[in-house]
Amino acid sequence: MSELRYNLIAREWVVIATERAKRPEDFVKASKEKKVLPAYKSDCPFCPGNEAKTPQLVYLLGEPGSWKVRVVNNLYGALSADGTCERRIDGINLSMNGFGNHEVIIEHPRHDIIMPLMSDEEVENIIRVYRARYLALQDNKGIEAVIIFKNHGPGAGTSLEHPHSQLVATPIVPPQIRNRMERAMHYFDNTGLCVFCRTLEEELKAGKRIVLETDKFVVFSPYAGASPFMMWIFPRRHMASFVEINDAELSCLSRALKHSLQKLYYGLDNPDFNFTIRSIPVKEHGSEYFHWYISIIPRLTQPAGFELGSGMFINTTLPEANAEFLRSVKTPSK
Amino acid sequence: MSELRYNLIAREWVVIATERAKRPEDFVKASKEKKVLPAYKSDCPFCPGNEAKTPQLVYLLGEPGSWKVRVVNNLYGALSADGTCERRIDGINLSMNGFGNHEVIIEHPRHDIIMPLMSDEEVENIIRVYRARYLALQDNKGIEAVIIFKNHGPGAGTSLEHPHSQLVATPIVPPQIRNRMERAMHYFDNTGLCVFCRTLEEELKAGKRIVLETDKFVVFSPYAGASPFMMWIFPRRHMASFVEINDAELSCLSRALKHSLQKLYYGLDNPDFNFTIRSIPVKEHGSEYFHWYISIIPRLTQPAGFELGSGMFINTTLPEANAEFLRSVKTPSK
Repeated sequence: MSELRYNLIAREWVVIATERAKRPEDFVKASKEKKVLPAYKSDCPFCPGNEAKTPQLVYLLGEPGSWKVRVVNNLYGALSADGTCERRIDGINLSMNGFGNHEVIIEHPRHDIIMPLMSDEEVENIIRVYRARYLALQDNKGIEAVIIFKNHGPGAGTSLEHPHSQLVATPIVPPQIRNRMERAMHYFDNTGLCVFCRTLEEELKAGKRIVLETDKFVVFSPYAGASPFMMWIFPRRHMASFVEINDAELSCLSRALKHSLQKLYYGLDNPDFNFTIRSIPVKEHGSEYFHWYISIIPRLTQPAGFELGSGMFINTTLPEANAEFLRSVKTPSK
Repeated sequence: MSELRYNLIAREWVVIATERAKRPEDFVKASKEKKVLPAYKSDCPFCPGNEAKTPQLVYLLGEPGSWKVRVVNNLYGALSADGTCERRIDGINLSMNGFGNHEVIIEHPRHDIIMPLMSDEEVENIIRVYRARYLALQDNKGIEAVIIFKNHGPGAGTSLEHPHSQLVATPIVPPQIRNRMERAMHYFDNTGLCVFCRTLEEELKAGKRIVLETDKFVVFSPYAGASPFMMWIFPRRHMASFVEINDAELSCLSRALKHSLQKLYYGLDNPDFNFTIRSIPVKEHGSEYFHWYISIIPRLTQPAGFELGSGMFINTTLPEANAEFLRSVKTPSK
């Protein structure tokens, strides 16, 4: 019979339903078109030469004519820095302006390259820009949280081919972060320990869900992983905020992220995926109980009515088997 | 600029980003194949004559040779009634057997009919079976909640054509229900009122988000609706649990649900959708602060990294405009 597992960090119950288990190969989309992208596309606003087609430039790594990473405001930004950020109360309805920032991080000049295939230095450039933009925005008046994420492929919610990530700075603490904080705070109050540090310790002891280890980061399949082949990248050192990482950690993180994405790319034939950096709200750095991490979520299944109606998830694969498979995938990164 | 709205019931912040607003017609999938289904399919396990292909029958409305609604155990049930429901604690990991029930409600003998096109009586039969199965399972030892839902179309997570709904009885209170209960409890403690009753009262007063009203139910686009054209069906009378409805309410609900689904069917050309009945846990009926309702969620957009990373949603349509459009859709139901 299936097993219910509790995700201590996300407060989620997950059904691990191995009776319906699929083999890893079954997740490689049979119908997937092997689209070969050009290195440059004249009508792509993110390709070099088309810089005038993008909205306001906010950050540049490299020189204007030979940039490495460019950050621009999102043309259809969900939030914008105009206006004020007071709450409006109208009867029982609570609203506010869509105040904040929504930026696009153009990861590379080339149209046809993706993160797992970039050089170590190129991936490190991107992570360095994540940190720079987070640091630049976190002190802005009214900003409570910075969400950095990547959508890769249509199943992950993007139709744009040119490699890019996004950053949204919000004027409220997003409920998912607050929820994780509340859980972690209770755990800290009960035990005096960081639930993330404890999770990492237990995962390293158990070993069977570890995908890869580096000097400063550990990548593993969460015990109660909500979907097939999801991975968490945890820093070994306790840090509440992503921007507390030092240069050595940043460099190490880049390699761990690239290596993890290679596991997906080579093991599951370039699946659609999202990743997101889960960090504490910007005004609560230094917390003893929160610990930032990256969540990588391949988009291989479709949540349905049960998930929408319960907040529970059904995972038809076993996290231990996911990790075993991912460990065995041969990648250029060692 | 966009607007942030707070969903008081789900504790969600939603970005209403009307700058990217699409017209209702843009949500009709251009590529959608107009698949004409046969009334009977010899290899469909849910079609009459193939009853032996389904797992254990648990409920029948009508006669074996001429049934109206059939309920069977799910062949690949996420949960099953075998085994026990004690929690297992192993270090920091919490698990339990996948104990519970997972049933399929085969809504109609015909392969090619869908709920918005059925007769009033046929839809009422289905809702009557929902209630009967909920009542039958709620007193079972170890069952904490009953989730009833429907997945319509591949975008909503089903590939089965024959009209069916599902029921899952869980041995834990799903986190999404607990979360809503906590919020409602705080609201009750602060105000002495049911937040759902208050919401309904305000929606009726404002009027602009109402889709349709019946004697005993009100259908509206939630103020902070997380996705385009989602609808809530609220009973006017305060009831914590779905199974508190009386026969007159059940009959009225059937017509309200059918009419709401017709609004989607005719207005958006049969989109994929989910619906789910959000009810209080089975041992907490009679609560003053919780109020059951149905949530209908057309699957017209794909949540991406921002949603996964924040728990916030971006809705590119205005709930007031959604309601106005849905009100204007001409349907056979009046």
